[in-house]
Amino acid sequence: MSTLEQMKLFMEPASIAAIGVSRRTGPGEYNLLANLVSYGYAGRLYPVNPNATEILGLPAYPDVAAVPEVTDLALISLPRALVLQAVRQCVAKGIKAIVIITQGFADADDERGTQLQNELVKMIRGTDVRVLGPNTFGIANAGLKLSSSYIPVPMEVNGVGTVSQTGGTFLGLNDIRLIGKAIDVGDMCDVDIVDALEYYEADDQTKVIALHVEGMPDAREFLRVLERVARKKPVVTLKTGRSERVAEAVQSHTGALTGSDAVWDLALRRAGATRVEDIEEMSDTLRAFLRLNPPLGTGVGITTYTGGFGIIAADACARSGLDLVRFTDRTMDGLRELSPEWLGVGNPVDIWAGVSIMGHTRKAMETAALRLVMNDPNVHAAMAVIGAFDPHMGEEHVEMIEEMARDHPEKPFVYFMYGPEFQAVRETVEATGTTLAFPTPERAFRALMHLKRHRDFLGRLPR
Amino acid sequence: MSTLEQMKLFMEPASIAAIGVSRRTGPGEYNLLANLVSYGYAGRLYPVNPNATEILGLPAYPDVAAVPEVTDLALISLPRALVLQAVRQCVAKGIKAIVIITQGFADADDERGTQLQNELVKMIRGTDVRVLGPNTFGIANAGLKLSSSYIPVPMEVNGVGTVSQTGGTFLGLNDIRLIGKAIDVGDMCDVDIVDALEYYEADDQTKVIALHVEGMPDAREFLRVLERVARKKPVVTLKTGRSERVAEAVQSHTGALTGSDAVWDLALRRAGATRVEDIEEMSDTLRAFLRLNPPLGTGVGITTYTGGFGIIAADACARSGLDLVRFTDRTMDGLRELSPEWLGVGNPVDIWAGVSIMGHTRKAMETAALRLVMNDPNVHAAMAVIGAFDPHMGEEHVEMIEEMARDHPEKPFVYFMYGPEFQAVRETVEATGTTLAFPTPERAFRALMHLKRHRDFLGRLPR
Repeated sequence: MSTLEQMKLFMEPASIAAIGVSRRTGPGEYNLLANLVSYGYAGRLYPVNPNATEILGLPAYPDVAAVPEVTDLALISLPRALVLQAVRQCVAKGIKAIVIITQGFADADDERGTQLQNELVKMIRGTDVRVLGPNTFGIANAGLKLSSSYIPVPMEVNGVGTVSQTGGTFLGLNDIRLIGKAIDVGDMCDVDIVDALEYYEADDQTKVIALHVEGMPDAREFLRVLERVARKKPVVTLKTGRSERVAEAVQSHTGALTGSDAVWDLALRRAGATRVEDIEEMSDTLRAFLRLNPPLGTGVGITTYTGGFGIIAADACARSGLDLVRFTDRTMDGLRELSPEWLGVGNPVDIWAGVSIMGHTRKAMETAALRLVMNDPNVHAAMAVIGAFDPHMGEEHVEMIEEMARDHPEKPFVYFMYGPEFQAVRETVEATGTTLAFPTPERAFRALMHLKRHRDFLGRLPR
Repeated sequence: MSTLEQMKLFMEPASIAAIGVSRRTGPGEYNLLANLVSYGYAGRLYPVNPNATEILGLPAYPDVAAVPEVTDLALISLPRALVLQAVRQCVAKGIKAIVIITQGFADADDERGTQLQNELVKMIRGTDVRVLGPNTFGIANAGLKLSSSYIPVPMEVNGVGTVSQTGGTFLGLNDIRLIGKAIDVGDMCDVDIVDALEYYEADDQTKVIALHVEGMPDAREFLRVLERVARKKPVVTLKTGRSERVAEAVQSHTGALTGSDAVWDLALRRAGATRVEDIEEMSDTLRAFLRLNPPLGTGVGITTYTGGFGIIAADACARSGLDLVRFTDRTMDGLRELSPEWLGVGNPVDIWAGVSIMGHTRKAMETAALRLVMNDPNVHAAMAVIGAFDPHMGEEHVEMIEEMARDHPEKPFVYFMYGPEFQAVRETVEATGTTLAFPTPERAFRALMHLKRHRDFLGRLPR
C-alpha cells in the first residue's frame, strides 16, 4: 500500500475502532467517542471496552478481535502499559492505521517510555501497519465531521490542512477558529511530518498547508519533500523551540531535536515555505492565502475616514516593504472632484470630507474613491481604513467589495478596521469571500507581503 | 485662570453650547447633540441654530448671545466660513473654552485655511479664551457621559486618559474598546498636547496616559513636560508619521512637522515615556498598566496544558527579554508529586498529565501547579497557557486568580489563551480585575516587559 493510500485510511476512514474509551461522559471526562458522536461522524464507530456492552448507544466490544469488521482506523487511548497489547491485537486483526493518543512514550522522562516506544516501532517494522503518535490528538477532517481529539473541537470545512507537533492547533489558530483537516504527529514513532505533507500535497480539498514544527530526526528528507510541496501549495510554517533554553523543553515534549534556528530559517526559505513568527501571523497568513490573490507589485493605495489612522496605515505600509504609491494625475483629479477644494488630496486619501462637507453618502464616497484608487496603474493592492461604530455598516460595503473583486481580481483589497463593532462589521465584509479585515494595518500588510513573496518565489522557479 | 482650570472647563463642563447642530438626526447625520442626548450627559445643553426653536426636545437659540447662561464650553460645528464669527460671539459672551470641530483650517491645502487659522489665533491672543481644534473630535469624559464626537462612541469609566492628534482613538484602541477620557488636539491652534498632559497629570481619575503624536511645532516644551509627567504616571506613546514619505501625509493631515524618527525615539525614551509600535501594542500596554503590578525581575514561570503551546510561550518569553527560569528543587519536587513519575518536569510545566493520568481536576491541578510556580523565589511573573474550548471554563479559574493576587500581589499573572471560546473565557478571568488574557504569548510578554522597563526607569531616578 502506498504512503498516500495509507494516509487516506487515517484521514478519510469509513470505520473506526475506538479502543479504551470510557463509559463515563460529560465535562471533565474527555471522552473522544462522545465527541465523535456529537460531531455526527458519518462512518461506522466501534467502541472497545471489556467492561461495557454498550457506550453512548453503540454496542461495545471486549477487544478489537470481536469487532465485526476490519476498520480503516483504530484509536488507542489506554494507559501506556496496555497500549502495546492493543497494537498487537490491531495488527492481528488486519487494521492498517493506528492512532496512539496515550502519553508517556518518547515524550516521557523515564527509560520505560523509550523502551515502550522502541518495542512499538519493532512491532510494526516490516508490516504495512502505520502508527500515528504516541502522544497525539490524532487526526481531524471537518468534511467527515471527524476529530480524534479528546477535547471537543470546532470544525468547519475549509482549505487549510494542518500538520503539527501539538494538539493545541486542533482548537484553531486565533482568527482561524476552525480547521479543515489536521494531523498531530505527536512523538512521530512512525507517521511523520513528511507523510502528512505528502497527503496534503495530493489532497484536492487542501489549498494551503499550515505546518508547526519543533524539530525532527531527518531534516534532509523533510526539506526535499517540503521543496516539492511548496511549489504546489503554500506551506505556512511556524518553527518553534528556537532558543537553546527552550530546546530542552522541546526534548521533554516530543523527544525531538530542534537544531539551530538560523539553519532552519535558511532551509525553510530555500525550500519555498512561508515562515511566520507567531500563531497570530500564522492565522493571518493562512487567511490571506485562502482569500486573496497575491499582488503583482508592491504599490499600495489607501482610503481613510480619519487622517490620523491613515497615517498609522501609511507607517505600517512603509515598514512592511510595500510602497505607498503616488497616484497618477488622473487618479488625483478624480479624487479632487469628490472632495472640497481645500482638501490636500494624496495617498492615503481622506474620504471623510467628501461625506461631511460634499454631502456624499459614505457608500457613494467610499466606492467612488476606491474605484479611482484601484484603477490607478501604480496600485497593486488597496486598503480601506474604517472605524466600525455601527454593527450594520458592513452591509453598505458589500456591493463595493463585489465590484472590486469583479473588476480588479488581481488586486487584493483589505480593511484596517478599528472601533467597538469590529467583529460584526468584519463578519459582514468577510462573508463576501474576497476580502479580509484586520485590527491593525501592520498585520494586514504583513499578510500581503507573504502573498507577494510567495508569488515571487514561484516566479523565480525554472519553467 | 490657570491652564489647569481652563482644561477643566473643556474636560468637566457643567454646561455646553452646541453651535451649528442640525435639526436632522439619525444615521448618516453625525449629529453630536443627538449623541450627547443619547449618552445621557448630565450637564446643561444649549443647541444654537438660527433656523430652529427646538432640537431633540431642547429649546434652541438663534445665536450664542441668546443662550441664558455663560456656558463652560462651546462646541462649534459650522461650515468653516462661519466659524470665526461664532468664535467672536463666544468670546463676547464670556465663554472661556471653545472646541472647533470644523475641518479646513491648518489641515487644508489652500491659503484660505491657513489664513482662517491665523485670524482665529489672533482673535483669542491676549484673551483668557482657549480653543481646542480646529479639525477635531474634541473631548470625551466617560464619567460625565460626555463626548463631543459626531460619531457615536462607546464609553466606560476607566483610568485611561488619551491625548491624540486624531479622533480615531475615540472609538477605542483594539482591546481597549472604551476610553475613560480623551482629548483630540486636532490642528492645535491653541490647546496642545502639553496642555492635555498637564490636565491628566493633575487628574486623579487618570492612572495611565495614552499619547498619540504625529508631530508638533515646539518639541522642547513638550519633552520638558513629558519628562515631569512620566515620573508620575506611565505615558504610553505611539509616535506616527515615521517615514519621509508618510511625513508628507501628516503635513496635509494636521499641518504638523514630524521630525526624524530616531530623534523622537531617543527623546521619548529619555523622558521616560513607554514607546509602542502600533495600536495593538498600545492597547495591550495600557491594559497592563491598568491591571498588573510590574514584575520585580525578569524571571518567568509557565504552566501549560499542551507541550507544543508551552514551547510557543517559552519562545516568546526568550525573545521578549524576559527569562524562562529554572525552578528551585523544592518547586520541582512539588511539581513531580502532582505528575506521573515518567513526566519530565520543567519550565514550562505540563499540567495535562496530572489531569488525564493522575486524575486531578483541572482546577485542582492548575491551582496546585501555579501555587508552586508563584512560590518559587526565582519567579517574578507567571503565565498560564490554556485552550479555551468551553465558554464556562473561566469560572474554575476565578478562585485561583484571587488567591494569586492575594498571596503574590507583586508577581503579575497572565494568560496565553487560544481556542474557539477565547472571548468568553477571557471575559470571565479578566472580570477578577487582577489578570489579563492575551491571544498570543508575544503580546503578553511584550506588555510585561513594558511594565518592567517602566519600573526600572522609576528606580533609576534620583530620590
